[in-house]
Amino acid sequence: MAANIIDGKAFAAKVREQIKGHVDRLKEEHNITPGLAVVLVGEDPASEVYVAAKHKQTVESGMASFEHKLPADTSEEDLFALIDTLNADPNVHGILCQFPVPDHLDERRVVARIDPTKDVDGLSVVNAGLLASGEKGLVSCTPLGCLMLLRDQIENMSGKNAVVIGRSNLFGKPMGQLLLQQNCTVTIAHSRTQDLADVCRRADILVAAVGRAEMVKGDWVKPGATVIDVGITRIPHPDKPGKTKLLGDVDFAEASEVAGAITPVPGGVGPMTIACLLANTVTACCRANNLSEPEGLTV
Amino acid sequence: MAANIIDGKAFAAKVREQIKGHVDRLKEEHNITPGLAVVLVGEDPASEVYVAAKHKQTVESGMASFEHKLPADTSEEDLFALIDTLNADPNVHGILCQFPVPDHLDERRVVARIDPTKDVDGLSVVNAGLLASGEKGLVSCTPLGCLMLLRDQIENMSGKNAVVIGRSNLFGKPMGQLLLQQNCTVTIAHSRTQDLADVCRRADILVAAVGRAEMVKGDWVKPGATVIDVGITRIPHPDKPGKTKLLGDVDFAEASEVAGAITPVPGGVGPMTIACLLANTVTACCRANNLSEPEGLTV
Repeated sequence: MAANIIDGKAFAAKVREQIKGHVDRLKEEHNITPGLAVVLVGEDPASEVYVAAKHKQTVESGMASFEHKLPADTSEEDLFALIDTLNADPNVHGILCQFPVPDHLDERRVVARIDPTKDVDGLSVVNAGLLASGEKGLVSCTPLGCLMLLRDQIENMSGKNAVVIGRSNLFGKPMGQLLLQQNCTVTIAHSRTQDLADVCRRADILVAAVGRAEMVKGDWVKPGATVIDVGITRIPHPDKPGKTKLLGDVDFAEASEVAGAITPVPGGVGPMTIACLLANTVTACCRANNLSEPEGLTV
Repeated sequence: MAANIIDGKAFAAKVREQIKGHVDRLKEEHNITPGLAVVLVGEDPASEVYVAAKHKQTVESGMASFEHKLPADTSEEDLFALIDTLNADPNVHGILCQFPVPDHLDERRVVARIDPTKDVDGLSVVNAGLLASGEKGLVSCTPLGCLMLLRDQIENMSGKNAVVIGRSNLFGKPMGQLLLQQNCTVTIAHSRTQDLADVCRRADILVAAVGRAEMVKGDWVKPGATVIDVGITRIPHPDKPGKTKLLGDVDFAEASEVAGAITPVPGGVGPMTIACLLANTVTACCRANNLSEPEGLTV
């Protein structure tokens, strides 16, 4: 196997260690404990797993974790009242509402209600605008995680051809902005792109985020390229009946013979997302207290 | 000469005719006159020419034009007080502050003070975020003008390779977003791009906005491509001593032999900018009054 396999799990652990160091310093030197509030409406089992994982890592990093579980029939008014309270609470530096929310609630309105300086998921229109304008905001966690992995792999991205497959507000578009800030020549490809294989073959940095299992084949990858696989598709396990298996957007077996470096699925980008949520919370906490931002945890 | 020369002056006149039709209807059917307020701080001669042109075209289209000329030493406080008044005025649907402003004023703070629903220059962080999120906002006038020209030339942009040279907040980035909305595969190139000629040669739609006279050569253009030239550089006229001449970013003589369609400089993109300012004002007026937006005047 030619490619360096990027160990996202180990890297995320390193980032969490860094975060813990910053949190310790904030407590010792400034008597400030960064706090993350997570709001969960209803009882989606997958969401409960995510929220529990976020809680655990928040606490392990020394931060305060505030969980708010609301019944599935919570009105927008009541949810907004809680968000307003959290917006006003000086002990809360980050707020996220776990999605999906029940159908009677509008995700965009919920995100818009969160103070942009506490929107640690980086999903609000204001934070999208700050990113698009090259100003300081909070950057969506998964693209931020990919950027951290890339910065660790590539000393200088300037002038490199970066191709992002996928153009979602959540990932593809902010990822494109981040790569542009790194002075890459950035191409956003998507379902309507013609000759996608050919477009990918020109990429020094190839980021796939479409959710189609093993779509990117080995011969789509430029030899030596850095490949970041954001896709996650769960399929029935081929060998273990009743079990499932996770696949990325990239045919790992093929691509890892060609790429210079590649993230596996699982264990690549995935673990970075919660680490970046914690990173954003520390960043937001420092900004709220007019302290200099910790280095390496944001754009 | 092979290429169809895109007559931006004639097209802008057609857009203004359309706008006038909408304005007439708004007056007759709803007793509403769209109003544009332009604020000019100080006495920059070029700015005065622009402001006068905007005023003239606003009035010609049947809209109300409000001009506010403030002395060069106007404080931020006083400027903000005026903007607040205009934000609150129901007869004002669009507000723009002519840039540059004197050095003691901060352009970003000025733009941020304008109600985003009246920010007809589309320069605010909120409007950048709405565009990046694919939500309804007001789009920066020059990229909107280029989009209108492209829609007129190309029935369906889906799947086409679009290359934008330049990544400014004012033009390159919003232009990229607009082309992505049209389902183009979008590449943003810039000063750090390697093999720029090669990148350009793959473009079905090539938009140049760097401000380097005649940088894009004929052999950078894919045969049949649509070329939009946003650059404007003023040089001493080669034949008429004491006179000046405008050049675009594209070597027009060469590129027009290869392209399928191309905008000249002057007379291409330039005239579209004020037309789009008027278009944005009508759009903002309709939204403010809960009326359906006129078709063809926005994204």
